[in-house]
Amino acid sequence: MVKRRTLLKSITGGFTAAAFSTPALVRDVEAAEAPELRGTGDLGVIVERASGSVQIVETTTHTSLARISGLGDLSHASLVFSRDERFAFVFARDGGLSKIDLLTHRLVKRVVQAGNSIGGAISDDGSLLAVSNYKPGGVNIFNSQTLEPIATIAAGFGSNNDLSKTVGLVDAPGGRFVFTLYDAGEIWIADCSKCLAGGKPELTKLRDIGLLPYDALISGDGRYYIAGLFGEDGMALVDLWADKPVAKRILNGYGRGEKTLPVYKMPHLEGWAQAGDGFYLPAVGHHEVLSVNARTFSQDNTIKVHGQPVFVMARPDGRQIWVNFAHPRNDTIQVIDVPTGKIIKQLKPGKAILHMEFTARGDQVWVSVRDENRIDVYDPRTITRIASLQAQAPSGIFFTWRAGRIGL
Amino acid sequence: MVKRRTLLKSITGGFTAAAFSTPALVRDVEAAEAPELRGTGDLGVIVERASGSVQIVETTTHTSLARISGLGDLSHASLVFSRDERFAFVFARDGGLSKIDLLTHRLVKRVVQAGNSIGGAISDDGSLLAVSNYKPGGVNIFNSQTLEPIATIAAGFGSNNDLSKTVGLVDAPGGRFVFTLYDAGEIWIADCSKCLAGGKPELTKLRDIGLLPYDALISGDGRYYIAGLFGEDGMALVDLWADKPVAKRILNGYGRGEKTLPVYKMPHLEGWAQAGDGFYLPAVGHHEVLSVNARTFSQDNTIKVHGQPVFVMARPDGRQIWVNFAHPRNDTIQVIDVPTGKIIKQLKPGKAILHMEFTARGDQVWVSVRDENRIDVYDPRTITRIASLQAQAPSGIFFTWRAGRIGL
Repeated sequence: MVKRRTLLKSITGGFTAAAFSTPALVRDVEAAEAPELRGTGDLGVIVERASGSVQIVETTTHTSLARISGLGDLSHASLVFSRDERFAFVFARDGGLSKIDLLTHRLVKRVVQAGNSIGGAISDDGSLLAVSNYKPGGVNIFNSQTLEPIATIAAGFGSNNDLSKTVGLVDAPGGRFVFTLYDAGEIWIADCSKCLAGGKPELTKLRDIGLLPYDALISGDGRYYIAGLFGEDGMALVDLWADKPVAKRILNGYGRGEKTLPVYKMPHLEGWAQAGDGFYLPAVGHHEVLSVNARTFSQDNTIKVHGQPVFVMARPDGRQIWVNFAHPRNDTIQVIDVPTGKIIKQLKPGKAILHMEFTARGDQVWVSVRDENRIDVYDPRTITRIASLQAQAPSGIFFTWRAGRIGL
Repeated sequence: MVKRRTLLKSITGGFTAAAFSTPALVRDVEAAEAPELRGTGDLGVIVERASGSVQIVETTTHTSLARISGLGDLSHASLVFSRDERFAFVFARDGGLSKIDLLTHRLVKRVVQAGNSIGGAISDDGSLLAVSNYKPGGVNIFNSQTLEPIATIAAGFGSNNDLSKTVGLVDAPGGRFVFTLYDAGEIWIADCSKCLAGGKPELTKLRDIGLLPYDALISGDGRYYIAGLFGEDGMALVDLWADKPVAKRILNGYGRGEKTLPVYKMPHLEGWAQAGDGFYLPAVGHHEVLSVNARTFSQDNTIKVHGQPVFVMARPDGRQIWVNFAHPRNDTIQVIDVPTGKIIKQLKPGKAILHMEFTARGDQVWVSVRDENRIDVYDPRTITRIASLQAQAPSGIFFTWRAGRIGL
């Protein structure tokens, strides 16, 4: 599976600002009892973006454990987990960086590290956090234990050395972070392996990658970094194994295309699924899922689907692809069988399906149904609903297995 | 990465029966304090086979947390983790199945479920354990919560319905287990998705797969099951995605070969590493690592190495392959750079290197140096030793990230 980090532009569907009642099953932080001794491998965090809160859940018996509030503006919020899977780090849109404890159900610390930010990453050894910023641009690096600042990467460009917004920030093996400069059209590789000991990030800058990169992803093995370009056809590919990495144009015809299409929501690049020998990705502006050869990065199939796809998620065994869609067709999920390329099931869980997250070995998939204030849990073998949980306008769902994956 | 489960025949190097002193850093279970509230994502278990004990370790600061004794005969022992990463299930050679608590450092329960057994697996939803038995043969299924028996798969074959030894037992997606009948030369697929509710395992039996299958593995996505054949050239491949799975012969020339070679130790099939576009595997009886195309399963390269390889382990990003060797050359590790196929480093940590385990995102690799009673921890970026821990004749090393991987 591959993972997007940030999304610059999006046109979201209507936003429901309903008055929420707190579901009975969710304990407030204030009421938390003595922390329970428990493993953390089956835990997860659900973003409730309208209320600036998250829920802590567990997947073994599908229950909500607690709600933590006061996390700021969580639109497009994402999060990463500590290497021991005890803590989650929440990247809020307002520049807030919060560390929450999944065992005591407490907000451990919150810093506002920029005026406007869009996602982050945790280094492969778990020691560093990196946050991608719009205002004032650049990337900030923090000690994950303390949230103390470690380094700032200013992302200056051009003759005035203006600061660029950064997008598509991911971790890469070897203590590195990789990110894209939206305004500059550049990709930077930052080796931060010596930063905790006081060293500066060592930067490799790739220029002229293309116009208006809006998001990026890294392949599951951390080798390929791919940036989407809003300003032109195609995408920029970097092979991070190369002695001197360069940005190469791939998938001409992908992206905005020559025709001006009504794009309701730019697809998340997390929505690139690796399954079998290919990548599956959402077409931009079309009711299609594309399959791309994972070696040549050339397109080899097109699957017609219900609407403009947003997330194209592979079941962990790569046998199925689950797809959700942009407004106004965002009440539907379609399931594609990979060997045949056929849609084998269509689900209508409710209004505004925003995200899907599989358990690590794929025995469950959790679906956020924002406008119904509900999370649905499916058994992907039978494609039947096995549980539901209440949630306040849920968006992103994140399980702790991500702590052990490159680029998530 | 791919994983072997069992190994029928092996000729191990000399066994050191030194008198062990308990390392000062290892707390005995009896002395355990009140359990510490902590995450479980950075924990691991090290098998100390001479003393029938395991150590619980953590990788963030490279420390030993506790020793748990009384686990029986741990030669060729392996283990799996619960879905919440709190418990480990240890499969001992004497038929013992032990559940240990990584947080309280206690042996929760031990059952002796057969006279002689060789490995096991945990179902993709974490609810069932399966154990592979030599005496009386077959596979036993247990409730992972209670260790109560759920089902027995007798593995009868031939006109007398004799019970076959079973090897190569792995979990597969969809609540299935797959294993190989050593005496019968068959592969069985057991769908146990209804067993917890009282249903019987639904069996699919593949006959005539070849002579003397000694071990097997499953690919990281759970699609391909491959059994090694001691009795003939080649291996047996099953595509578990097929509507009617069949066993197909691959890699003619692999296995015992036409020449009778002095094989000091049959390589573990866990030692098949998936990296880039290929599998890397130990040649049998030769001082070679073979690379095999991951799509066609045909051999495409041979890399000369120091001795007969035992484990061929990929760093999680697939950029490096670490190899250890059979007696008498088992004091050495070689590191292969995947893009060039060259050996870039040779290490001599000490006598009897038995196993290697990478952390989930590859910032560390732990190495058991049995005859030095030591575990060495390396930084794979720099290939330098960063820590050592005392251990009693350590063999297998297992980290909790395995709970989230198919077939491990």
